[in-house]
Amino acid sequence: MWIVRQTYIDKAEKFVRMHGNMEFAAGGSFEDVFSVAKKYGLVPEEAYPGLNYGLDNHDHSELDAVLRAYVDAIVKPARGKKLTTAWLNGLKGILDAYLGPAPELFTYNGRQYTPESFRDMLGLQLDDYVSISSFTHHPYYTEFVIEVPDNWIGAASWNLLLEEMMAVLDNAVDNGYTVAWGADVSESGFLYRKGYAVVPAEQEETLEGTELSRWVALSPESRMLELLEEKSELTVTPEIRQLAYDNYETTDDHGMLITGIATDQRGDTFYKVKNSWTSNGIYDGYFYASRPFVEYKTLNIVVHKDAIPDAIRAKIGL
Amino acid sequence: MWIVRQTYIDKAEKFVRMHGNMEFAAGGSFEDVFSVAKKYGLVPEEAYPGLNYGLDNHDHSELDAVLRAYVDAIVKPARGKKLTTAWLNGLKGILDAYLGPAPELFTYNGRQYTPESFRDMLGLQLDDYVSISSFTHHPYYTEFVIEVPDNWIGAASWNLLLEEMMAVLDNAVDNGYTVAWGADVSESGFLYRKGYAVVPAEQEETLEGTELSRWVALSPESRMLELLEEKSELTVTPEIRQLAYDNYETTDDHGMLITGIATDQRGDTFYKVKNSWTSNGIYDGYFYASRPFVEYKTLNIVVHKDAIPDAIRAKIGL
Amino acid sequence: MWIVRQTYIDKAEKFVRMHGNMEFAAGGSFEDVFSVAKKYGLVPEEAYPGLNYGLDNHDHSELDAVLRAYVDAIVKPARGKKLTTAWLNGLKGILDAYLGPAPELFTYNGRQYTPESFRDMLGLQLDDYVSISSFTHHPYYTEFVIEVPDNWIGAASWNLLLEEMMAVLDNAVDNGYTVAWGADVSESGFLYRKGYAVVPAEQEETLEGTELSRWVALSPESRMLELLEEKSELTVTPEIRQLAYDNYETTDDHGMLITGIATDQRGDTFYKVKNSWTSNGIYDGYFYASRPFVEYKTLNIVVHKDAIPDAIRAKIGL
Amino acid sequence: MWIVRQTYIDKAEKFVRMHGNMEFAAGGSFEDVFSVAKKYGLVPEEAYPGLNYGLDNHDHSELDAVLRAYVDAIVKPARGKKLTTAWLNGLKGILDAYLGPAPELFTYNGRQYTPESFRDMLGLQLDDYVSISSFTHHPYYTEFVIEVPDNWIGAASWNLLLEEMMAVLDNAVDNGYTVAWGADVSESGFLYRKGYAVVPAEQEETLEGTELSRWVALSPESRMLELLEEKSELTVTPEIRQLAYDNYETTDDHGMLITGIATDQRGDTFYKVKNSWTSNGIYDGYFYASRPFVEYKTLNIVVHKDAIPDAIRAKIGL
Amino acid sequence: MWIVRQTYIDKAEKFVRMHGNMEFAAGGSFEDVFSVAKKYGLVPEEAYPGLNYGLDNHDHSELDAVLRAYVDAIVKPARGKKLTTAWLNGLKGILDAYLGPAPELFTYNGRQYTPESFRDMLGLQLDDYVSISSFTHHPYYTEFVIEVPDNWIGAASWNLLLEEMMAVLDNAVDNGYTVAWGADVSESGFLYRKGYAVVPAEQEETLEGTELSRWVALSPESRMLELLEEKSELTVTPEIRQLAYDNYETTDDHGMLITGIATDQRGDTFYKVKNSWTSNGIYDGYFYASRPFVEYKTLNIVVHKDAIPDAIRAKIGL
Amino acid sequence: MWIVRQTYIDKAEKFVRMHGNMEFAAGGSFEDVFSVAKKYGLVPEEAYPGLNYGLDNHDHSELDAVLRAYVDAIVKPARGKKLTTAWLNGLKGILDAYLGPAPELFTYNGRQYTPESFRDMLGLQLDDYVSISSFTHHPYYTEFVIEVPDNWIGAASWNLLLEEMMAVLDNAVDNGYTVAWGADVSESGFLYRKGYAVVPAEQEETLEGTELSRWVALSPESRMLELLEEKSELTVTPEIRQLAYDNYETTDDHGMLITGIATDQRGDTFYKVKNSWTSNGIYDGYFYASRPFVEYKTLNIVVHKDAIPDAIRAKIGL
Repeated sequence: MWIVRQTYIDKAEKFVRMHGNMEFAAGGSFEDVFSVAKKYGLVPEEAYPGLNYGLDNHDHSELDAVLRAYVDAIVKPARGKKLTTAWLNGLKGILDAYLGPAPELFTYNGRQYTPESFRDMLGLQLDDYVSISSFTHHPYYTEFVIEVPDNWIGAASWNLLLEEMMAVLDNAVDNGYTVAWGADVSESGFLYRKGYAVVPAEQEETLEGTELSRWVALSPESRMLELLEEKSELTVTPEIRQLAYDNYETTDDHGMLITGIATDQRGDTFYKVKNSWTSNGIYDGYFYASRPFVEYKTLNIVVHKDAIPDAIRAKIGL
Repeated sequence: MWIVRQTYIDKAEKFVRMHGNMEFAAGGSFEDVFSVAKKYGLVPEEAYPGLNYGLDNHDHSELDAVLRAYVDAIVKPARGKKLTTAWLNGLKGILDAYLGPAPELFTYNGRQYTPESFRDMLGLQLDDYVSISSFTHHPYYTEFVIEVPDNWIGAASWNLLLEEMMAVLDNAVDNGYTVAWGADVSESGFLYRKGYAVVPAEQEETLEGTELSRWVALSPESRMLELLEEKSELTVTPEIRQLAYDNYETTDDHGMLITGIATDQRGDTFYKVKNSWTSNGIYDGYFYASRPFVEYKTLNIVVHKDAIPDAIRAKIGL
Repeated sequence: MWIVRQTYIDKAEKFVRMHGNMEFAAGGSFEDVFSVAKKYGLVPEEAYPGLNYGLDNHDHSELDAVLRAYVDAIVKPARGKKLTTAWLNGLKGILDAYLGPAPELFTYNGRQYTPESFRDMLGLQLDDYVSISSFTHHPYYTEFVIEVPDNWIGAASWNLLLEEMMAVLDNAVDNGYTVAWGADVSESGFLYRKGYAVVPAEQEETLEGTELSRWVALSPESRMLELLEEKSELTVTPEIRQLAYDNYETTDDHGMLITGIATDQRGDTFYKVKNSWTSNGIYDGYFYASRPFVEYKTLNIVVHKDAIPDAIRAKIGL
Repeated sequence: MWIVRQTYIDKAEKFVRMHGNMEFAAGGSFEDVFSVAKKYGLVPEEAYPGLNYGLDNHDHSELDAVLRAYVDAIVKPARGKKLTTAWLNGLKGILDAYLGPAPELFTYNGRQYTPESFRDMLGLQLDDYVSISSFTHHPYYTEFVIEVPDNWIGAASWNLLLEEMMAVLDNAVDNGYTVAWGADVSESGFLYRKGYAVVPAEQEETLEGTELSRWVALSPESRMLELLEEKSELTVTPEIRQLAYDNYETTDDHGMLITGIATDQRGDTFYKVKNSWTSNGIYDGYFYASRPFVEYKTLNIVVHKDAIPDAIRAKIGL
Repeated sequence: MWIVRQTYIDKAEKFVRMHGNMEFAAGGSFEDVFSVAKKYGLVPEEAYPGLNYGLDNHDHSELDAVLRAYVDAIVKPARGKKLTTAWLNGLKGILDAYLGPAPELFTYNGRQYTPESFRDMLGLQLDDYVSISSFTHHPYYTEFVIEVPDNWIGAASWNLLLEEMMAVLDNAVDNGYTVAWGADVSESGFLYRKGYAVVPAEQEETLEGTELSRWVALSPESRMLELLEEKSELTVTPEIRQLAYDNYETTDDHGMLITGIATDQRGDTFYKVKNSWTSNGIYDGYFYASRPFVEYKTLNIVVHKDAIPDAIRAKIGL
Repeated sequence: MWIVRQTYIDKAEKFVRMHGNMEFAAGGSFEDVFSVAKKYGLVPEEAYPGLNYGLDNHDHSELDAVLRAYVDAIVKPARGKKLTTAWLNGLKGILDAYLGPAPELFTYNGRQYTPESFRDMLGLQLDDYVSISSFTHHPYYTEFVIEVPDNWIGAASWNLLLEEMMAVLDNAVDNGYTVAWGADVSESGFLYRKGYAVVPAEQEETLEGTELSRWVALSPESRMLELLEEKSELTVTPEIRQLAYDNYETTDDHGMLITGIATDQRGDTFYKVKNSWTSNGIYDGYFYASRPFVEYKTLNIVVHKDAIPDAIRAKIGL
């Protein structure tokens, strides 16, 4: 929640400078974490649980709503006045009320820290992490700013070939690195409660008569499950990946962590993913994303640069 | 500004309980002062100047805008969630940022006070003040809640005959009481920069030809000044007073203080009024309101009950 | 419908005087009935059925919509004009069209009445009824105006301890008085079609694994029914009652009549409630509200003052 | 006001049938008069002055606002209900309140009439009047529905050559017929208070240096008056007339009556126009429109068919 | 799609001339087809498939949305500028992008055509088709403009008795004419996926107790199917037909083609209807509408005038 | 207009990818010019005048309005559909209609060019230009993205000390380089029609009595001119420069070119500025900006890197 708090402050400041021409919502990018850590330090959850509003679990809907209303009122052009010097303090006052005041000094495992000293104690080399993506609307092997609303901070990613992006992912997981994974989770193939995420190859043959009637009458989830029994997944190409991004099918929904690789009984590869949502009741909140799903629905991954295969690293001069 | 701060908190709480079906704006009634004093005490301006936002003079336009946006976001029905326990603290955080935190202990004239002890030191009998008005849509000699948006608190006033309301005012000023005056200041006859407020009798004769052309071409203010040269003011009856309230001509604009009576060279009575606005450059911010103006445009007056003539006091059992 | 018609007229007048800063909708409070009876008299349903709009059952959705649109147009600040003297007549014209003109003289059981003479014939002592509630945000044993949108009229209630409010209710029903009951009926425990309203104690133990999955997959109503089998209801304290009012869980939904008390096979107390809605097909439109439901979800009750136990009556000086 | 009342009823009925996809405002076309006369009869102003709302002169701003709000509420798609049978009666109730109930029987010059009998007494052949216009986007000598918002009723006009339309006008006025004139009165050349309406030829030569500065600093009206001193007016062709209609310069503003022709000292033709507005203080409310103004800014004229020159009448088969 | 394209252009032009006071949406009337054919000619689907936007089936939701946004921006009154001469070309540019440029010359069955020459080759007598309807709010045997939003073009229909309208339909189908059918398809009795459309007589007897509970718990479709088993349909009179049109029950939803008549096992008449929607999987996209459904829910039919029985044709002078 | 056209296309594409969370309006940054030149080439005004909409001078108000409406309709979340592949072509169709189709081949001074060959012929080294600014909210000597709405493209600027930014400007102009100047032109000191832009030192002494009255009554422009007679301008510090940017006083209004330096009779420095607006009638459209104005109101300047003094160039490693 420390990251959430400090990101909201920076986002509000930029939103106001941009006179509101920017996303201002709960979402963000992995770069937000690095940016906050560099500017303000880090605070463990124990020292800043951020639950000052009467609930035991995080639900920011009211907080998001009042923060949005607040910054909208600040930038509203009709007011036609100079801004006061108090507006950012007012926003911090709201954050203090919901999440708690920012800790200047806190105790963790018996030692006292400031956010800066805690960050330094962790020994993370914050500049050693890079973001990688793969799209056709920018040249490969250059950095570009992924054009998604949540990327309010303008974080840059390296553009690699699809198979290179996957090679980075595989190499990282194989070598014990956790990979931050920005992905689309609003697909009908994302079945979190069932514990997996897949992309069935779309139905080829044309149904007729009663077959069609039966199919049409199924719920989207039932259709998905039926398709999955046959289990052939889509072959993902850069073109269909790009099209899905271009036409709003793939959206920038959620950040998770890929922590491992598994193979199912048929030999297909699945990535093990850690999710911050409340448990799905199956794998303690983990789920398995098929390789086609990851190829298709990954916005970007963030990895330690040492996790990138040397050949690829050379191509982008890292 | 202490009164402003505490009133905004109470107003927000009621606004939220009423699910937004209430005025929430900068305005208020005299009762707000008494209510805050009773519940929270009083703080002198020196101890709570309320100018934490980068200006030397009060300008609450941004503060009003963000507070309104904030409470609107809280009550927004579409959100369809339970309220958190933090929302009122968030609103106080905004007030803290713009006006400063509420002083728990402050020093005034070399002595230390809490808001409560400061109020008690002043020795005011807060229950000895009554509000008086005069309208025909409620029975005389009863209390009623004046139906104006700023009366969000539901303050009650005694309804007297017009001449009785004026008699209370005259008696109060004659006996050295200051009278709180709720009045309409958006009339064309309210000429603050000229130092007076009047109600010219409306033009009776019908203008013709070039006379009419000339008149029509005048600005509203020029017409007013021309009418004033002839100086006959309107004879105000309860009926025209009521009509102006009924049809939105008379609105509940502003609270001021009547501190004296003066007579002009023609023997007409004017009330001396103290206004909180920046000086008009003529009478140090004071101005003079004609008796017809006061008869016509008074929403209510608040006076010490000892300032009411005995005969009237008997009628309302005070 | 006579009450509906006259209340809409009074509500519109106040709404316009408040420049729209007030609720204007179909809802109201019990005080509306008393207020109309005192000002305008009473008319039996036979003499004013109010069904002039092509339906056999009351459905005011179109009427409510046009009345709201009408008064919004009147108060719209952008128009910036004085109001005409015709606007209230125009609103009455709408009411005449939908509900029928107000009867000046009507025949009931073979005798002719005016609304006033019909009220007087009934012999009701309209000032003998008092409203009672129980909240912690006002001092006990004082009158306060319940802050709910439907209380547009500003009706006052006496604030009693929760057990005292319940004692008044019990005493009234035991002595044959019908009690007007303002309550929240949008709770998942309000199962009108099943004929009862309850407040199950919330699930204490934490579910795990498949138990959790099953529970999560249930519809809200299925969860409710499952909880009810175990039948332990919530122990309602003033604190949780207040919290539910503060956080919008308890809302001011509907007015009904409590006409009796019943005990189920396990000895738990239920209040028999008469509802104006179309029959639930079980108990001829009646349903049974458990004592915890009434303790938790009562906004206020209105009773004849003789129905209040003497000890309580003494405390509030009635 | 009889015409106003009955037109509003018909317009509301069509507006609701069109689910709001139509203009609903104060404006209309000449055909409205004929349509009301045919369907409902006529009522003289003395018998239906339409001033029931507290003013001595017509000001329909509040009435227009509530009627619009009313019909918008009726057609609002979100309500998703069947309409009641009462809605049109409710609208009539509003009209009754502001304009007075429709007279079924009234006395005029000592004789009693119904609207129908009054119309019949007048002896007007309502089908003998035709509307004429001149535009290039429809074929000449055919009837078409002028596409302007106020033509909600879909009235058809005959499309003639510009010089033919003017010939009809001249012939009509020469033979003592009054001509109804639908025209654009929001032009800078429409100087009602000065008593005339003109179309100065636009400035040809390019101004330089201080000449330009002086010109730029003038108000639009001052520029107009300066241009008029030189008095050369625009030569109006069908093309510039059409362009001004196509590009929203010429709008359908107002209906007036042309009652005569005059010639100024320089021999230029002006049409004498009778206007319903409050007097301009110069010519008792009449003003003079130059021939170019009429050629340029006429939407349509309505004349008795006997006022059309025979040659033209033959072309359209009347 | 040629018709769609050219209609959108004409509709936009009229919408802009009407300053937006008109429907502008995907819907239209049969007259649109005749109007386009007369003004611009005809183009077969092969020559203008209109699928330039990445889909294999027509889905105009995005196109409709941008066209509406475009014309709304043109007419927006706040802009207060003259229109440019480019706006209609800009709209055509959008249509070119989505549907393809208008073909000036195309090859069909080995021959080259312009739209005009293709229309002429077809040999259709476009003036020989007439629209027929039956409503009580206009006189019978006259032409009137059906007041439905989709009739933006102002097409006129002949008003016949209900039995006459049905007689025209029967005569046309009996003689091999296809009949264009404008009908309401949002009724619960319109069961396209089941292959029929019916109007069950509404349930007469009052259900009680558990019977009612069961009924209330059914989905609208289940209730419909249950009613259909008993199969008695509503007897449709002009009055209930008119009421359904007046109260928004019958809406102007969709145009289809009636191509035949069938009789079910019980001897009831059904009309065979061809629908442009994707196949319902039962009768190749055809469905059967009962005679009561057609009587009740027909907005208008368009037939060749030779398909009208002579007796009726005589009454309207065709 | 070539730059305008191509920028609008790129801006639309990014706007849609950002789901509308970005400015989409007529404004832009200098980087837009370089970006278009690199990606698409350059076209001289003669070859692409962009005046296809009926006017002789550029007025994009209608074009801006329809483009905005168009992209808003594309990103509208409520539609909930995948985007088509045609939307960008539709936008180009609008641009074609208003500005003309993009020239693939054009003749200039007798030779034929493509946009790319024309750019290459010009011999500009597009990567040799850098943007420079000076703000305190980012570290000096680093690149940052200026947070102003028009910087939709995310162009980076080098952050220098205020005196260094001015030294770059002086050095550039002294050495004959034209400097692109992004500045705020909505200040009361920006008197374009008078031919200069200044920042008067604010009035220090407090006015009293009639002096104040006179001052208050002046128009903003009159006050400005009076202040200018005394001619002492504000001393601009980084702090007041930053504050004006922080509080919305300094806004990102307009891009111009600084082409020279002049000194007035009192020895004060003024920069000669070339403006694209229609001539101010004094200096052929040029005006003179005082050094304090430039210090205060410059958002950024873009210069050739050779125009930067070596010492400064070394600090930023160029």
